[in-house]
Amino acid sequence: MRWINFSLPGSGRRAYGRLDDDDRVHEIRGIPWAGHELASASYKLSEVKIEVPVVPPTFYAAGLNYVTHIREQETLTGRKIDVPPQADIGYRAVNALIAHEENVVIPEDATHIEYEGELVVVIGKKARNVSEAEALQCIFGYTIGNDVSERAWQRSDRTFWRAKNCDTFKPMGPWIETGFDPARAETRVLVNGQVKSHFNTGDMLFGIATFISRMTRYLTLYPGDIVWMGTDGHSPKLAHGDTVDVDISGLGTLRNTFVRAAGNPLAGNS
Amino acid sequence: MRWINFSLPGSGRRAYGRLDDDDRVHEIRGIPWAGHELASASYKLSEVKIEVPVVPPTFYAAGLNYVTHIREQETLTGRKIDVPPQADIGYRAVNALIAHEENVVIPEDATHIEYEGELVVVIGKKARNVSEAEALQCIFGYTIGNDVSERAWQRSDRTFWRAKNCDTFKPMGPWIETGFDPARAETRVLVNGQVKSHFNTGDMLFGIATFISRMTRYLTLYPGDIVWMGTDGHSPKLAHGDTVDVDISGLGTLRNTFVRAAGNPLAGNS
Repeated sequence: MRWINFSLPGSGRRAYGRLDDDDRVHEIRGIPWAGHELASASYKLSEVKIEVPVVPPTFYAAGLNYVTHIREQETLTGRKIDVPPQADIGYRAVNALIAHEENVVIPEDATHIEYEGELVVVIGKKARNVSEAEALQCIFGYTIGNDVSERAWQRSDRTFWRAKNCDTFKPMGPWIETGFDPARAETRVLVNGQVKSHFNTGDMLFGIATFISRMTRYLTLYPGDIVWMGTDGHSPKLAHGDTVDVDISGLGTLRNTFVRAAGNPLAGNS
Repeated sequence: MRWINFSLPGSGRRAYGRLDDDDRVHEIRGIPWAGHELASASYKLSEVKIEVPVVPPTFYAAGLNYVTHIREQETLTGRKIDVPPQADIGYRAVNALIAHEENVVIPEDATHIEYEGELVVVIGKKARNVSEAEALQCIFGYTIGNDVSERAWQRSDRTFWRAKNCDTFKPMGPWIETGFDPARAETRVLVNGQVKSHFNTGDMLFGIATFISRMTRYLTLYPGDIVWMGTDGHSPKLAHGDTVDVDISGLGTLRNTFVRAAGNPLAGNS
């Protein structure tokens, strides 16, 4: 089943809806992973604006979780990167989330922008101290993320704050799919309609159950939390006007266009 | 002016209140930094449970921002740590926040727990591309944080997820003070009533205006966001039963007791 968060053009009101036949949005009152009931309104998908599917309490990201990607990052940074010996989760910032078909804005002083197409886990139940065998039970569903990265800042800065968390650097969506098997899926990333990366979504160094079990030994996962599972493959350098599709078979396609900022940054302040 | 977030024992309901004469809580409807009005109810401070003063959309932390602390971390880790050349912000996790007088739970397999007493900035207005001269205008007020850290995991893990973001590792409170000048304040940290660290709160490597101006060149700060400003001085190793007071002159005292978990962790899973 597919759930979208949407608004109606001209109205600030947001709601969740169930998406039927990839075309019809049946509005609900409440949220999909908690108490809710069907409302009377329904819309064509083309009539609504798709919003970020969930604004999480905490935004987790696996980071380095596919072996080929780690080797590519070594080449890119010129630094040896050890394959992580254990599933250590990281974080991204809620401020950076944008929806399907919203624009990624490239800061004026950014020099090297890349995509990272990722599977996103959406937590549906509070979870603490769960075993790997029971870990998947706290998942509500899955969506798609693009962990947009500025590689020069990733090398130069002490943290990933600018490299990965500038406003608009975290596209996520378009919807949450509850019936999905990562082991049988392929992730493909297209730039302007041309396939540039593809990998088996399930080829993770540490799987979803391993991460969730280990995380919940030390922390509580809450409904609405999201866990981005990392990426594989190579991104070309992106430029103004490029449209990036992250497509995961069985989930859908997250599409965003990259545009260069035309603002007035504070010169000399970096 | 002081604002607290509180609940009444036996009720799950939370509200904000204005604290008068350090003793009387006047409930308001709404939130202090947005539209609100005085409600009719008022309580003695001793009658209410003090809650986390704000659950932020994004939880920022300066990390290394006092020179003495950087030198101490070098000695502790045996690794050279360069003084940061620029104000690069980091992140902490919302899941880890607890209130004044709630217990910090030390995980069973933790071996080296320390405090870090910090000034916390609470954002009151949306801010993007603000100069240093105008940066402080987006601040609503200040509170106190304890950036509890497990130093062995800080050395061993690829990220700070366990070292700094276990459940209960981020005490914050007790209230938000709107009239406060960091340049004139002293931070003292006491363990079981004995002063163990003290430093001038304003002796930061990069000041609050510098951080806010630089951050908002790349991202939007939203009302309710928090920025923890880093710590100075040295913490002894903490043990079960220790009570830690972080006291900032003109702000108040954040008190929490540290207790060792008595749960059943998944043996051999780390």
